[in-house]
Formats: sequence, structure tokens, C-alpha cells
Amino acid sequence: MEPIDRVGVENVRTHLKIERDGSTLFHLPLIDVFIDLRGDRKGIHMSRIIETINQVVSRKHADKSLEQVGSDILDGIASRHEYVRGEVRIKTQLLVPRLTPVSKKRTYESYEVLVKVIKDGGMRKYLQVSAIGNTLCPHSLDLTGGKSHIQRAELVFGIETELGSRVELEDMADICDACFSSPTYMVVKGEDEKFLVEHMFSNPKFVEDMARDCLNRARGLGVSGKVTIRAKSFESIHKHDAVCEIEREI
Amino acid sequence: MEPIDRVGVENVRTHLKIERDGSTLFHLPLIDVFIDLRGDRKGIHMSRIIETINQVVSRKHADKSLEQVGSDILDGIASRHEYVRGEVRIKTQLLVPRLTPVSKKRTYESYEVLVKVIKDGGMRKYLQVSAIGNTLCPHSLDLTGGKSHIQRAELVFGIETELGSRVELEDMADICDACFSSPTYMVVKGEDEKFLVEHMFSNPKFVEDMARDCLNRARGLGVSGKVTIRAKSFESIHKHDAVCEIEREI
Amino acid sequence: MEPIDRVGVENVRTHLKIERDGSTLFHLPLIDVFIDLRGDRKGIHMSRIIETINQVVSRKHADKSLEQVGSDILDGIASRHEYVRGEVRIKTQLLVPRLTPVSKKRTYESYEVLVKVIKDGGMRKYLQVSAIGNTLCPHSLDLTGGKSHIQRAELVFGIETELGSRVELEDMADICDACFSSPTYMVVKGEDEKFLVEHMFSNPKFVEDMARDCLNRARGLGVSGKVTIRAKSFESIHKHDAVCEIEREI
Amino acid sequence: MEPIDRVGVENVRTHLKIERDGSTLFHLPLIDVFIDLRGDRKGIHMSRIIETINQVVSRKHADKSLEQVGSDILDGIASRHEYVRGEVRIKTQLLVPRLTPVSKKRTYESYEVLVKVIKDGGMRKYLQVSAIGNTLCPHSLDLTGGKSHIQRAELVFGIETELGSRVELEDMADICDACFSSPTYMVVKGEDEKFLVEHMFSNPKFVEDMARDCLNRARGLGVSGKVTIRAKSFESIHKHDAVCEIEREI
Repeated sequence: MEPIDRVGVENVRTHLKIERDGSTLFHLPLIDVFIDLRGDRKGIHMSRIIETINQVVSRKHADKSLEQVGSDILDGIASRHEYVRGEVRIKTQLLVPRLTPVSKKRTYESYEVLVKVIKDGGMRKYLQVSAIGNTLCPHSLDLTGGKSHIQRAELVFGIETELGSRVELEDMADICDACFSSPTYMVVKGEDEKFLVEHMFSNPKFVEDMARDCLNRARGLGVSGKVTIRAKSFESIHKHDAVCEIEREI
Repeated sequence: MEPIDRVGVENVRTHLKIERDGSTLFHLPLIDVFIDLRGDRKGIHMSRIIETINQVVSRKHADKSLEQVGSDILDGIASRHEYVRGEVRIKTQLLVPRLTPVSKKRTYESYEVLVKVIKDGGMRKYLQVSAIGNTLCPHSLDLTGGKSHIQRAELVFGIETELGSRVELEDMADICDACFSSPTYMVVKGEDEKFLVEHMFSNPKFVEDMARDCLNRARGLGVSGKVTIRAKSFESIHKHDAVCEIEREI
Repeated sequence: MEPIDRVGVENVRTHLKIERDGSTLFHLPLIDVFIDLRGDRKGIHMSRIIETINQVVSRKHADKSLEQVGSDILDGIASRHEYVRGEVRIKTQLLVPRLTPVSKKRTYESYEVLVKVIKDGGMRKYLQVSAIGNTLCPHSLDLTGGKSHIQRAELVFGIETELGSRVELEDMADICDACFSSPTYMVVKGEDEKFLVEHMFSNPKFVEDMARDCLNRARGLGVSGKVTIRAKSFESIHKHDAVCEIEREI
Repeated sequence: MEPIDRVGVENVRTHLKIERDGSTLFHLPLIDVFIDLRGDRKGIHMSRIIETINQVVSRKHADKSLEQVGSDILDGIASRHEYVRGEVRIKTQLLVPRLTPVSKKRTYESYEVLVKVIKDGGMRKYLQVSAIGNTLCPHSLDLTGGKSHIQRAELVFGIETELGSRVELEDMADICDACFSSPTYMVVKGEDEKFLVEHMFSNPKFVEDMARDCLNRARGLGVSGKVTIRAKSFESIHKHDAVCEIEREI
């Protein structure tokens, strides 16, 4: 029989708590777990994988990070099921406290995050943050001498690196926010709206600019690994989207 | 046993051809069909419904409209299965030929459409067009004295009326396009982009304005029925959306 | 100008905590808020709605229920913005502790929930639970004399009732689970799998049966209101779905 | 500046006609086009890409295949825009005529397809078919001595190979259908249902079996290239999915 690259479970909805710096973060993530399978085995014992997830998320004590949860699941499976390469994916939301730019209101801004832990000999992790901001078109600004089209944009920023590398999802969210024509906020008072709009006009961006800015800022994180960037503008003068992708070792 | 309001099949992918004004339009729609069920019947014969769909879409000759297809399916079911109220939903895309505003390039602009035919004594239809355009915020334009935020917007415009009412999906798509700060195009040359951006700045719109404009233009269609409007801005200064809904007899 | 039925914000991602019976539940919901608008007003002050959401979810103390959160948001808006009819929708997941049927393992089973609070003179609520289970086809069981096709099924069960009515999302989740050929579990040991499969074969269900069972069990809750039921089978012998809907005053 | 891997447009909805063996197939696809960008160029001319798509899909004559459309778009762009690596993705549905197993009714079964053409020195293509079928669990069949759980399953089968390789989407759809416990049909008469259910019980499959079968059958196509397989069961005794992936050079 053929060996299998990845077999397991997808979209297991569960709960998690993460203890960090004295505060506790709660998640209702979707979890995927995959392992490989040798050619001489007909199938994996899927219930052993699920039992391990269940055991890890049901523990009384909180973990220190989402990657620690992933790593604990992979270690737990290793004691019940043979595998060479294993992978855990945790998909959830991150709420980051922010202050609005002028009125200084406290908001919690949300980011979709994916944390992947891969065991393959050593342990690696892939952290990914998806942020919502906007782009103002530089070309249109030139054409009209000061006007332009603006649109919601999405930046998906991922880093694959060693499990122990010091890189935080919150720092990645900050980098994303810095790559848009302007970041977005839940609450926007009149004075914030004026500031944000004027800031966009002083900071026009193509999807190419967003992706390159993100790569440059990723280099500033001081980690080694592979960066994956996908910048998308939900174009306001088109029905389709503009997209730019970069993959690069840093 | 309890009588049942609607029971049937959902998301049947098939093909259709519509002959109109000498040209043939092709569709790969998803079709839903529901009928009611008396309290003394355990279940419907679902295969009879599916066979009827299959028969109607497999005919050699093309129908004259999507509502004609729906009506033929309902008639076909009536000869094989007892029901009082039946409903067919056809979900597809409409491609409408347009000229770009300045360069006069020919494009085909796409709209998601839903055509529903309801048999309940007489026959009624519900036609719905979803269009993609944009909004430029009037409030922000005031605040900054000439700048503003702009975003992709969606207008979902539906009319429920008699089956025989003369209202065309293409006219509904035209109405949608007229309610945005500007319509959108697949191809936009430099001169079109300048025109579209300047047009947006001269035509700021809240979601409330879009919805009200749509209702007023719907009155101009000269049909009686119930209008359902949902205007949405994919806000570019927020992560969330702004939405406005109106339901009204016209 | 035309009066507007509903205008507001959609898909505001935020966090919530609910204190009940001594324990705290955490949510990362999406929240929608809509109010109506008189014909003589051009637009609503959307930022006042958002500020109210922000204020309610940022309070130190936990609320007692999701409907209490909705009700607090509507009251908060009333003090900042004129409206006659207002509506809050909170979309999140519920994790309900269960024991697997034979091995008695503790799992947390997930349900998508929607809690809507409507202020329109008095206060009403709409509670909705979506559950994942399965159906085994009674017709096929007869045809083959003991074999059948089985598939994942979804039951969406909603009740609109007075805000103060005593009905719990957990009870609604229990009702859903009781309407399938069998409920589903995250962890399933060999002995559970045997039990569940045998149970399915002893409990064949059409979507019509699921919907009727749900309505009958809803009557047992002892509340007055309007029940909305949507039962769906992701058919395993078809590419399309089978669906049954009932709406009824109870 | 950093060179960019892929920049372009995504989700352009348009129409296409394909002439083959004397008959014409119509599509309403979504098209993506990406090219690379040198480090010394600030941005691409996105309108040139869109104009090329528009020109190719607006031609009077039909193309011979979806890959020919992709190849024509890449050639068209090459005459207007510098690039080293270009990629076109066409996402649509394929309707394949089938006969039901016993009643021999004619149906058209639908498959989601993705055709990708990559120009990078030479031309390569990636063809992908997603099919809906079912799996019957072998483990459960053993446990209960003849009963089992069954569920809808999806098989996503892709091949990357030379542009000129002789491999047809229809053959790939046939392979997918052969890898399930049983294929699915739009119309199923009583005698077909009996046959299909009995066939499933004689042909139990794990996701691992589906994926391995697919790989073995792919080898029989007589093409060289890279196969990508993703088999998924929408588990009927769980809320989550079971997934198996294989990537292999053939």
C-alpha cells in the first residue's frame, strides 16, 4: 500500500484557555490534527487522536500559548500512536486592545489567527495572522490630482519558524496594521474618522506595497524562517479582488 | 402528525438554457424545490421532485425565462405529487453587457440572481438581484472638507409580484447600479478610473441612501408587489459592515 | 424620505463573558445591531451604536445570559439614539458537557447559537440552536430489508418568545440531539460506536420526522411563542440536500 | 524593492464557451490571473491583465478546452506585460452525463473543477476535480457484524503535468466516482437506491482507502506529473470531518 502524507481530523470545535502575563485568554477554536501513515498500515486510530485533543483541552491548568497546546497534543499522540510527521492546526480569533488614534477610546480589534505546530524530527511552528485594513490607490490619486478609490483590504501574514522562536501573534498583528493605508477600528469618533481618512490620503498603497512592507517589517522581528504573505484589496471600482503574494526565507 | 410548511431538495446543481430575443443564455444554477405536506402523510416522494427537475432541464427546447423554468417544474410536480403550496428557487449569475463610462469598452458585468416561483392557488414570483458597487461616506466628506472613505458595497434588491408581471432581471440590475456612489466595471482604463473616482466624490451615499434610492426606483418599474432591499457597505475604516434594510409594498 | 426598517452594523467581532450558576462562560461572538429610522432623518449615528456595544462588552462584571447582553445593548442605545424598534443578534458557539453513551467519557459538544433580542414596545427574544447529528433513511431500510444510507444532518431550532420566558439554550440543544437518528460525539470509543450505529438502525428518520419531533418536543418546553425549525440531511446517495421546514405558534 | 511571486486579480466572474467533439459547453467561471514582478518595478498594470481576460472570453470562436483558454490568456498578457512566471486559474462546474445504475435514467452529475495553466519557461497545467460520494466505515461494519455508519464524502483529485499531456477532466471525474463506497446520483429510483445501499455495504472505505485508490487509478492514466489527493468524510457520528491527503509524483 501507498504511504500517506497526512491523515486525521478537521474542524473539531472546542474550548481553550491560555494563561499569559497574569491574564487568561479564552478561545473557541477549530482544531485540525494530521499524522502520516506507513504503507504497511491500513488506517490510523482516529479515536486516539480525538481522545488526545479532548484530554489536552480538558485539563484544569491553562497553557501558556496556542503553540504550547499544539505541541502538547502532538506529544500526547506520540504516546498512543506511531507517526513520523504530525501537525496540529488551531484556528481562532485574537482580540488585541488598541486606542483609537485621536479620541483615545479603548477598543478590542479582532484578527483571525492560525497556529500550526509541526513535529517532524524537531518541532516547528507556523503562526499566521489575518488582519482587516484598507488601501487607497496611488495610481488613482495621481490621475485625479488628489482623489482616489479606497477599499477594505486583508493582509494574511505567516511565519514558519522553530517552535522556540520568540515571535508573538500580537506583534504580527501590529505589523499587519502598519502595512495598510490605515488600520481599522471598531469605534471611530468624528475626530478619529477625520484623522484616519487624512492618513489614508497621505499613505496610498497598492497590494504590492502592502506585501513588501510586511516582508520588510517581518525581517525586523529577528527570527529566522519562511515568511508567507498574501495581501488582498476588495476593490471598490471592480467586482473582483486584487491580490499579491510573497514567500521568502528570512 | 403536524402538517409541514416546506419539504424538498436544496442545492441541486444542473444546467439550463434560456432563449430570449433570438439569443441563448446558459446557466449552471443551483435549484431548490419545496412543497408542503399534509399532517396525515409521513413523508414526500423526494425522487418525484428530482425527476421533475431532471425532466425540465433535460428538454431539448430552451425556456423563455428562469421564472418559466420554475413554473414548469411546479406544474410538472403537480401531476406526480399532491401539494397545496410549492416553491422553486433558481440561483445563478447574470452577465449584463455594459460599456465602460469613458473608454466605451465592452464588458460583461456579473450579478448574483435568485428567481423564486411560488404556487399557492395562483402563481407568484420573487426576483432578486445582488449587485457589487461602492459607497463614499457623506459624513467623512464633510468632516475633512473633501476627502472621504470609500468601500465596496452590495445591494440586494428583490421584488415579489405576480408571475405575469413584466419586470426583467436586467432592469433590476440597472436600478442597483444606479444606487451606488458609482457602479463597478471589470475593465477600467485610466480615463474610466478618473471618471469613476470623480463621480464617487460627487455622489456620496450612506447605506440608508442606497436603500431609499432603490425603493424609489423600484416604484418606477410600474409593478405591484413587495420590495425587499438590503444595502451593505464593507466598511473600509471598520472591520464590520454597515447594513440597511427596507421591506415595502409598492 | 422613506422610513427605514432596519439600519445598523453587522459582524462586529468581540468578546463576552457570561456568569451562571457560579461558573463563567466565554464567547468570541459576532454581534449585529439594527434600529429603525424615521422618514425625516437622513441617517443614523452608527458610532453611537458601536460605542454602546463596546461599553457593554467592556464592563468588568459578567452578564447572566446572552439575552441580557442583547437587552443591555438595546437599553444603552435608547439613551443615545432615538428608535422605535431595535434588534441585537449575537452569534456564537455553545459547548455542552456530555457523556459518551457507553464508555461514559466526558466530552464538550458544540452547537452554533444565535440569540436575538428585539425591542418594539416590549422586549422579545429569539433563541436559535443549530445541532449536528445524523439521519438513517427509513425508506431505504425497508427496500433492502435492514440496510440503509445514513448521513450527517443539521437541525436548526428557533423560538421567538417573551424576553422573560424561561427557556435555556442548553435545553434546546438537548431537544435537537433527541430528534436525530442519533446524536454525535467528539470522542467515540469502540463500544460507543457500536451502540450509536445500532441505535441509528433502530431509529430511522426522514427530515420530516426530525422536524415534527422537534416541534413536539418544543411544545414540552412550556413556553408560548413562535417556533421555527429547519431540518437538513446532507444526503449520502445524492450530491444535494434534503430539507424540511416548519413554522408554528406554540 | 523585493521581487514579488504572484500579483494579479482574483474572482473575475465571466462566461466561456468550449467547443469539443461537435458540442458546445458553457461556463460561468471565476478566473484568477497572477504574474510575478521584478524588484525594480513598483507595480503591475492590472488593467492590462483584465483587458486580456476580457478579450479572450469575448472572442466569437469557442476554445477547445479550459486549459486552452488559460494558455491564450497567458500568451495575450505576454504581449502587453513583462513577466517570467504567469498563472491562470479557472474555477467552474463540470456536468457529466451518467446513467443511474439500475433504472438507467439519464442524469447530469456535477463536479467542481479547477484548471490552472502555469507559464514558467514552458507551459504546465494543473487539473483538479472535486467529487461528492460517500464512505461506509469498515471498522464499524466489523464492530456491529453488518451495520455501519455512512456519510457524504468529498474527493479532491489534482494532477500537475505538461500542458500537452492527454488527460481529461471527465476521466478524472470517473476515477473519483470509482473511489467512494458508492458514487452519488441526482435521480435515484427505488431499484437504484437498493442497489447503491447494498453496493456501499459491500465496499466499505476509510478516507485512507479512498486516497490510495485514487492514487492507484491516477497511475493508470498514463501521464507523468504530480498528483494531489484530498479525501474527506463528513462524519455522521461526529461533528468534525475525517481527512486524508497524499501528494506523489507519478
